[in-house]
Amino acid sequence: MSSAQYLDRLDRVRKGMADQAIDVLLLSVGHDLPYLTGYYAMPLERLTMLVVPRDGDATLVVPELEARRVVEQPDVFTIEPWPESADPVEIVARLCGEASTLAVGDQMWARFLVELLPHLPAASFRRAVDVIGPLRVVKDDAEVAALRAAGAAADRVAAQLHAGEIALVGRTEAQVSADISARLLAEGHDKVNFAIVAAGANAASPHHHASGRVIEAGEIVLCDFGGTMDGYCSDITRCVFTGDPPAEIAEAYAVLHAAQAASVAAATVGTSCEDVDRAARQIIADAGYGEYFIHRTGHGIGLEEHEDPYIIAGNTEPLAPGHAFSVEPGIYLGGRWGIRLEDIVVASDAGPQRLNNADHSLVTV
Amino acid sequence: MSSAQYLDRLDRVRKGMADQAIDVLLLSVGHDLPYLTGYYAMPLERLTMLVVPRDGDATLVVPELEARRVVEQPDVFTIEPWPESADPVEIVARLCGEASTLAVGDQMWARFLVELLPHLPAASFRRAVDVIGPLRVVKDDAEVAALRAAGAAADRVAAQLHAGEIALVGRTEAQVSADISARLLAEGHDKVNFAIVAAGANAASPHHHASGRVIEAGEIVLCDFGGTMDGYCSDITRCVFTGDPPAEIAEAYAVLHAAQAASVAAATVGTSCEDVDRAARQIIADAGYGEYFIHRTGHGIGLEEHEDPYIIAGNTEPLAPGHAFSVEPGIYLGGRWGIRLEDIVVASDAGPQRLNNADHSLVTV
Repeated sequence: MSSAQYLDRLDRVRKGMADQAIDVLLLSVGHDLPYLTGYYAMPLERLTMLVVPRDGDATLVVPELEARRVVEQPDVFTIEPWPESADPVEIVARLCGEASTLAVGDQMWARFLVELLPHLPAASFRRAVDVIGPLRVVKDDAEVAALRAAGAAADRVAAQLHAGEIALVGRTEAQVSADISARLLAEGHDKVNFAIVAAGANAASPHHHASGRVIEAGEIVLCDFGGTMDGYCSDITRCVFTGDPPAEIAEAYAVLHAAQAASVAAATVGTSCEDVDRAARQIIADAGYGEYFIHRTGHGIGLEEHEDPYIIAGNTEPLAPGHAFSVEPGIYLGGRWGIRLEDIVVASDAGPQRLNNADHSLVTV
Repeated sequence: MSSAQYLDRLDRVRKGMADQAIDVLLLSVGHDLPYLTGYYAMPLERLTMLVVPRDGDATLVVPELEARRVVEQPDVFTIEPWPESADPVEIVARLCGEASTLAVGDQMWARFLVELLPHLPAASFRRAVDVIGPLRVVKDDAEVAALRAAGAAADRVAAQLHAGEIALVGRTEAQVSADISARLLAEGHDKVNFAIVAAGANAASPHHHASGRVIEAGEIVLCDFGGTMDGYCSDITRCVFTGDPPAEIAEAYAVLHAAQAASVAAATVGTSCEDVDRAARQIIADAGYGEYFIHRTGHGIGLEEHEDPYIIAGNTEPLAPGHAFSVEPGIYLGGRWGIRLEDIVVASDAGPQRLNNADHSLVTV
């Protein structure tokens, strides 16, 4: 990314601020700051904050001892390093001036907002996503290419799982999770974000962590993993069965498989997010599993694992070319078993583009 | 930790709330929530929040699909799972009732505070650290034992570095960082939090990340690494030299070594944090390096890598038995080289207890 590209993004953000009467934008930890500057704030008690007045120059307030990490881009922002004994919140308050409406990044530590409130007693606060979200949600060609490369790397690990190269029976979920993590790195990821391995009844808890439980023959093993590669995220879920699945699970998986495919097919430009959700949900409900599909169908993905657009009832936003998101319906029978099937999909004028193409069936390993 | 222990902590928090006229405490991501309940909130856009009214029962508002991860402790808190289509901020606002003063956890996502503000237009906000900090800053015997075990594990990796078992010359900083990370896990850590490897001029940037730069003969290699073991953190810095150090660096290191030892020795019960900082700073300044010591001397450590007490000018808080913190002065010559020496220390009635005892000298490898 060049300074000119960052400046272009910043110009578009300022237009959004003007449209929405936002005086100042405040960005700290999270992904809005690197989207606009290339710089990631360290998630520490020492404040890093980009202050963007609608009509003035942007300033990056940064701890002095981290200033040397910042790649200078004088056209994009001025650097204001603060020494250890200074109060960085006072510096930010000064840069905010007489602002009455401020928009703050979602993941900024609440601590800094709490400390800022008394400095700006009459101000009102908004979410920065209101102005940056519309930019970030539409991926340009380079971003789609990065997502595609990350997806292909995750697919290679899924293929290793399907081929039986990742031993399961007799190992703990945690051991398999570590194995998958190492393979994500070996296939080109810079960072592993998560590697859920949930066997048997554990698979019924969608956000189960890999545990010390030993995987046995004759059970479902749900693997949901992803990482970051060149700044963009992967996220894939495949289930395998250690043996021949019983009819109950095979039948439910067939429903899930059909539901996921229908939801992907529905993800055409102009279709609302809630209709993409409904496409999967309807098939699962019609088959009698409606009450066991306890989460939304998907989430946007890009610099972050979870971002707009959310594929969920109530989100009437229509899909546009460049929207990238997961399609991941699931069926969870509490205390017994769970299954989920997930691909990343990009909406395009040529129709929905799957970024994950690993075998979608319930493979016996 | 038993429910009785969590209840005891919660009782002490409620006393602090009464003393400080705080009506409701709100905890989300970060370490205050696990300190009081054992539960870690997932850092996601789906809200998890513990709502603790001063005089009412605590409620854990948690996404429905994560509710199965929560270990139920009915004596400590009630679980309120929210379905995907609900607005969890409305639930939290309802639980806050007529609260006029609320204290929020430092690392809660600002997004949720921004969304809560309109629900409570007359409320004022404080940092939860005001009531939980005084508890967390004093480690009990079990916590000190956990910190000691984590420190001993980090020491074993430092000893491997000193013994030349971790190859340096010809490898990149990133490769050495990965090697150190693997050794932290092998020595018993559950998670690596960071492994800074900074060679030559890179060592002059205190928060340098390990890069693709190849380490050469005849240069300083600063290694600062730590992880989490049974919930508690390690953090150690040692510098080695790939060859015989030149007189300039050897002399500066001798000053640093003396300064670090003096600061540790000063860390007796009753001494203020700023005096512990001053003990190191004075020696470094007297030797003419004052302008090159650009950060505080240390930070508290426990469930988090950085927490109270901060060993910094202006912190007049006296040390008490059970305070645990780093003592890590440094000297950084921008663009040339940098050195730092760090141990974790616990204040006790028997004097300062070092939790790191790996060789403190500038070892040639």
